[in-house]
Amino acid sequence: MSAGWLLRIRDSPDKEENMINYGFTKQTDYSFEEAIAKVTEALQKEGFGVLTRIDLKEKFKEKLGVDFRKYTILGACNPAHAFKAVQAEENVGLLLPCNTIVYEKDGKTVISIVNPMAVMRPIGNDKLCDVAGHVEILLKRVFNSL
Amino acid sequence: MSAGWLLRIRDSPDKEENMINYGFTKQTDYSFEEAIAKVTEALQKEGFGVLTRIDLKEKFKEKLGVDFRKYTILGACNPAHAFKAVQAEENVGLLLPCNTIVYEKDGKTVISIVNPMAVMRPIGNDKLCDVAGHVEILLKRVFNSL
Repeated sequence: MSAGWLLRIRDSPDKEENMINYGFTKQTDYSFEEAIAKVTEALQKEGFGVLTRIDLKEKFKEKLGVDFRKYTILGACNPAHAFKAVQAEENVGLLLPCNTIVYEKDGKTVISIVNPMAVMRPIGNDKLCDVAGHVEILLKRVFNSL
Repeated sequence: MSAGWLLRIRDSPDKEENMINYGFTKQTDYSFEEAIAKVTEALQKEGFGVLTRIDLKEKFKEKLGVDFRKYTILGACNPAHAFKAVQAEENVGLLLPCNTIVYEKDGKTVISIVNPMAVMRPIGNDKLCDVAGHVEILLKRVFNSL
């Protein structure tokens, strides 16, 4: 499976497969909290710590008074690769950390993971692309393990 | 000043101006902590809460044992616009929140703010671009006020 703007994710046949041009996404049978725990553990196995967590449902209720489905953004960072990235491209922190999102949809739980290559390639920095390519491989492994 | 991939930031002549294709950046005379306080306050004035903070210097020391300059990533979110964005593009959480970074460089403090249009335009969703365009205007105001 090659990196790129249009990236088709092939998954096991019992899970819905989707195509988005900036990440990997799949519907799962995990409960919402189970999905967060699973993806956090899978990220850790590949060297990513989850540094940030934003609960959109909670935030939208608190700030806008609107009801929204469960939707959480997890910000994951692999320190060794982040260090290389920031040495290659000083302002790359604008595009870090690498997000995973977990949300409810049609009684299922969707997990999506950003494709760092898709986000960073447009910067046009070859050294940064090298790092993004390595991180993409790790995040695909995370995705495929779910 | 038009939105776009190549966005030249014009600033007051006593501050260095830079061109990056995914955000706005300037060197300032603020101290590091002062810059974080100033940008947080300026973001709040335009309706953005700072929801996340990652201190890369601290993280790199803790995880890699390396010394790095002060470099902090602030994740800012305008709830009303984030709500519109996620309705327009289900997986846009992969690209949220909008980051501001503050880092030390050559005895100065640099502040950079992401250009959401540059990050989100490649998705090819017109409704999302409308939201990103509005957010870009707000973030430019933040930037210009610093």
